[in-house]
Amino acid sequence: AGSLWLYRWYYSNLCQRVLGFTIFLILALAFVEFPSSFTRTADVRYRSQPWQPPCGLTETIEALCMLIFLVDLSVKGYLVGQAQLQENLWLLAYFVVLVVSVVDWIVSLSLACEESLRVRRSLRPFFLLQNSSMMKKTLKCIRWSLPEMASVGLLLTIHLCLFTIIGMLLFTIGEKDEAQNEERLTYFQNLPEALTSLLVLLTTSNNPDVMIPAYTQNRVSALFFILFTLIGSLFLMNLLTAIIYNQFRGYLMKSLQTSLFRRRLGARAAYEVLASTAGQTGATSEAVGVNPEDFLRVLQKTQLPKIFKEAIMQKARSYDGRPMLADEFQKLFDEVDKGVIKEHPPKPQYQSLFLQSVQFIFSHRYFDYLGNVIALGNLLSICVFLVLDSDLLPGERDDFVLGIIDHVFILYYVLELLFKVFAQGLRGYLSYCSNVFDGILTIVLLVLEISTLAVYRLPHSGWKPKQYGPLSLWDMTRLVNTLIVFRFLRIIPNVKPMAIVTSTILGLIQNLRAFGGILVVVYYVFAIIGINLFRGVIVPPGNSSLVPNNSSAPCGSFEQLGYWSNNFDDFAAALITLWNVMVVNNWQVLLDAYRRYSGPWSTVYFVLWWLVSSVIWVNLFLALLLENFLHRWDPQSHNQLLVGTRQ
Amino acid sequence: AGSLWLYRWYYSNLCQRVLGFTIFLILALAFVEFPSSFTRTADVRYRSQPWQPPCGLTETIEALCMLIFLVDLSVKGYLVGQAQLQENLWLLAYFVVLVVSVVDWIVSLSLACEESLRVRRSLRPFFLLQNSSMMKKTLKCIRWSLPEMASVGLLLTIHLCLFTIIGMLLFTIGEKDEAQNEERLTYFQNLPEALTSLLVLLTTSNNPDVMIPAYTQNRVSALFFILFTLIGSLFLMNLLTAIIYNQFRGYLMKSLQTSLFRRRLGARAAYEVLASTAGQTGATSEAVGVNPEDFLRVLQKTQLPKIFKEAIMQKARSYDGRPMLADEFQKLFDEVDKGVIKEHPPKPQYQSLFLQSVQFIFSHRYFDYLGNVIALGNLLSICVFLVLDSDLLPGERDDFVLGIIDHVFILYYVLELLFKVFAQGLRGYLSYCSNVFDGILTIVLLVLEISTLAVYRLPHSGWKPKQYGPLSLWDMTRLVNTLIVFRFLRIIPNVKPMAIVTSTILGLIQNLRAFGGILVVVYYVFAIIGINLFRGVIVPPGNSSLVPNNSSAPCGSFEQLGYWSNNFDDFAAALITLWNVMVVNNWQVLLDAYRRYSGPWSTVYFVLWWLVSSVIWVNLFLALLLENFLHRWDPQSHNQLLVGTRQ
Repeated sequence: AGSLWLYRWYYSNLCQRVLGFTIFLILALAFVEFPSSFTRTADVRYRSQPWQPPCGLTETIEALCMLIFLVDLSVKGYLVGQAQLQENLWLLAYFVVLVVSVVDWIVSLSLACEESLRVRRSLRPFFLLQNSSMMKKTLKCIRWSLPEMASVGLLLTIHLCLFTIIGMLLFTIGEKDEAQNEERLTYFQNLPEALTSLLVLLTTSNNPDVMIPAYTQNRVSALFFILFTLIGSLFLMNLLTAIIYNQFRGYLMKSLQTSLFRRRLGARAAYEVLASTAGQTGATSEAVGVNPEDFLRVLQKTQLPKIFKEAIMQKARSYDGRPMLADEFQKLFDEVDKGVIKEHPPKPQYQSLFLQSVQFIFSHRYFDYLGNVIALGNLLSICVFLVLDSDLLPGERDDFVLGIIDHVFILYYVLELLFKVFAQGLRGYLSYCSNVFDGILTIVLLVLEISTLAVYRLPHSGWKPKQYGPLSLWDMTRLVNTLIVFRFLRIIPNVKPMAIVTSTILGLIQNLRAFGGILVVVYYVFAIIGINLFRGVIVPPGNSSLVPNNSSAPCGSFEQLGYWSNNFDDFAAALITLWNVMVVNNWQVLLDAYRRYSGPWSTVYFVLWWLVSSVIWVNLFLALLLENFLHRWDPQSHNQLLVGTRQ
Repeated sequence: AGSLWLYRWYYSNLCQRVLGFTIFLILALAFVEFPSSFTRTADVRYRSQPWQPPCGLTETIEALCMLIFLVDLSVKGYLVGQAQLQENLWLLAYFVVLVVSVVDWIVSLSLACEESLRVRRSLRPFFLLQNSSMMKKTLKCIRWSLPEMASVGLLLTIHLCLFTIIGMLLFTIGEKDEAQNEERLTYFQNLPEALTSLLVLLTTSNNPDVMIPAYTQNRVSALFFILFTLIGSLFLMNLLTAIIYNQFRGYLMKSLQTSLFRRRLGARAAYEVLASTAGQTGATSEAVGVNPEDFLRVLQKTQLPKIFKEAIMQKARSYDGRPMLADEFQKLFDEVDKGVIKEHPPKPQYQSLFLQSVQFIFSHRYFDYLGNVIALGNLLSICVFLVLDSDLLPGERDDFVLGIIDHVFILYYVLELLFKVFAQGLRGYLSYCSNVFDGILTIVLLVLEISTLAVYRLPHSGWKPKQYGPLSLWDMTRLVNTLIVFRFLRIIPNVKPMAIVTSTILGLIQNLRAFGGILVVVYYVFAIIGINLFRGVIVPPGNSSLVPNNSSAPCGSFEQLGYWSNNFDDFAAALITLWNVMVVNNWQVLLDAYRRYSGPWSTVYFVLWWLVSSVIWVNLFLALLLENFLHRWDPQSHNQLLVGTRQ
């Protein structure tokens, strides 16, 4: 009984939320810790000295978090039981990670936070990983597809190597035209250079550039690059997508089936328990089954959502006290599968005939359409003013007309809000999500407009007030207009095909949490490693003889493009840098810059990150999206499979 | 009978090949016609005056081709029949295209080939299109998925517009910091500029650059760009992939089923005909069925491949003259589905015991492995010399050692060839594809080496012969080494996982013909349109005041990057330019250049090409690859479906 209570307590909402918040907290510490990310810019040229937390602040928070993890680990260990504890590798790893973190924490404190390497920082994502069973499953899926991916990877490597050798043989300096061919040296100068060029071409990031010198000499040599891109980028890379998708095809279906199976098993077990207690108390032996009253009493204590509970209770009452058989008992829980149609509160009833007709007008859908048309008109007016004002400096702009127009539109929005509340009642109004979205934005807009009026008075022609308070009138107007643009999004649910696509995307986001979690883990680990490897490597120009002056830097180099903010000097900057490498475009610039500033081995880090993020994760994402989408657009086969497990 | 004979003649191999060659010829004319592609380079700076065909040459070929098409059209029209002719839109369109072409041809001749616009050039791909039923089917499939794609396209447009407006509101010049913000003007100066910037960001082609000015000012603004890329590039673009894949999912299966169904229908019809003739001649009424001898006689006249014919005949003989029933008759043709295992000729029998043991050694698979290891060694030796020689000019290189090594390796290859022929016999050797590949390369290498020896004599230390003949020694060596690299590909079938992946790709290529055809059509039409729109628009620097000097051109511009060869001045150059836009990377440079040289409307052409090639076609390709791959890796469900149609 004690362990059952502990189990319930551990899996209660409160406990799980505290645990989730703790994980979030310990991960978020990376922004605060040295090197902290609290500067306005990440650019090494303009960056001010950031605020550094005093020694002991983040360490105290860490200690609290680790205490909670310790409790979590012991409860989990107790619940799993002595026997299974030793087989559960995740729990063992949890223990090891926790011990290492504590030891590293003690070392850290004893050195007064001045230690050179914080091992525990790169271990932190493990806490996120071990807390989610979906993420563990996804990891397992990825591990299964690794052998096939390795074979494609091998093929890619051979493809790359062969083309490198052929490229070097084709594009070396000939005997006759030495001076002319000097240009070709840029991309095929030596083996590592050629290999890097073609590796980058595999991501198409240097596409026309790499072929230009050879192509300018001779048309035919373009074929070499086209062939390379076709085989590598179109065939082999997409084959990777296919392999990953093949592995994840039944993924969603399987997890649905598993959860259904578990529920049915649980229901059956509950039936057996309830039936046996009924058998003990009941006198007649033929009344084998569960007494609905017993069931209702037990149901009251469970933690199902209220709507499902009521639906099940209603169905259970229909048996009129007659004992339920196993099949009937199972069918009760099918109610949970049925989509619950949210009921909207009834419209308020007005007595007067005039009020009734007004209510009819404002709750009609044409009134909604009118609102959409007016929102579109507002958007267009903003566009027109953007076009008109684009060449003017802010001082020269006349905000009079735009100000008046904004006032009129916002007045309309407020009136719309009021009429709708009148027609549907306040609770009826709030029961629609789109109304809540509308309403909040309208109220924020109203508050902004009133405060603008209060500070800057009524607009008049040639109206150029000075700045009062934290926001200038110009900033206010910009903010208002941005919010109006957001408010325009309300039209999306009204357009049928867009609504379907949007609901697919929203449904995807729910299934995406495991994948997003893995992305967070990967980003975190790579960012921490990147900080340890490359912090302070990029030095601003002028401070060092290494860096050429901005004007003398060759075109397309890190310095000329001004990529100074793409560094690893703090956590936030590292995340953005990793994002830029993940998007792949122009990553050769970063490759080249870090090779110059930090040494040739930095390439390994970037190529590894490219493989993990862009090759594996993006393909994983595409596989998930395909899976989700095909499910939603082909619900027939979906239901069929679920029925299959039911029988 | 006449029309049956015509039908047979029309669908005979010869006729179809002539037609295919005619289509190829008329398409290939684009390279020859004015502006012809016969220059060494496409660069406007260095391009020489190309050879132009005299008026009448290409026109004569065209006239011949059109005559053949006329015959084709009339035969097809006759075979389809009067009644269906008017409903067959493809044939009607064929007729219209042919008429327009002839009229245009006459106009062309009467103006002595000096007309400004050749309409018929852009109509030519239609001949390719109408000749392939697979391409017509694929087109239909694409048309079906257009509505769904339009809804995603609408969403993409809204996404783009909203972010453009928000971006312009966020990144305009503020009131306080005018000088500082000057930089942001590059990407969000006015509405068209901002729209183009974000459109290009959707393809991630200007990824870090577009965020750098704002991100340098403030870290937070990076979120705007990341959010835009996430929603646009990761969600909406991949949703397009999902939609296209959804449409093409059953595509392969359906066409397999259709062809199977047609075959069974044909077999059944043949059975009915044969059975009725048998019923007339046979006396007993209970012997309903086909007489195997009748069947064998008919089978002799059909055009099945020989292997299948023999298999069917063997099975038919097993009925021993007893009449076959419908089911048995159908089963005969299942032989065609069974994969035919190619039998290799028997090994030659040698009398002497010594020869037998030698034969055993050289036909053992370890001998193959040894050959692979030696090929790898040769590749490595080439690599080593490439690394060693990379910094030397060709005049300083000593080719003595490499020359000797190459001689030794090629000697080994020749010996290997001879031993294998000895062990397996010549016919046995040639029955393996890999051997043929090996053998041809080895013989070419041998010829090259012997001619090198004949021209340049034996190598010795410090050996630097002058050039004789068309190829220098250095070119010879390069050619030899390139061929050796190709020969190394023989190891691929020996590595199991790579063999699977390679066979998938090869299988894909067979299914790809329809898609490749559509790509050719699209490329052709766009290239011709591009030539008509943009020929001569790009002018070399120095000739015009429009073009800044190379050194003064801003970084990242068309002129600085030297993209002079990416023009539409002839057909081959146009194809390469379109390829570069299709690969998408750095296409904003071309967009910008053509906007400057040709006017703002050129953007429409490039965006349209991007949509057709990169968005639709690449996704189509991915869908086909997924479909093909999943088929091959999941043959169980595949067979199941085929069985489903059979019953």
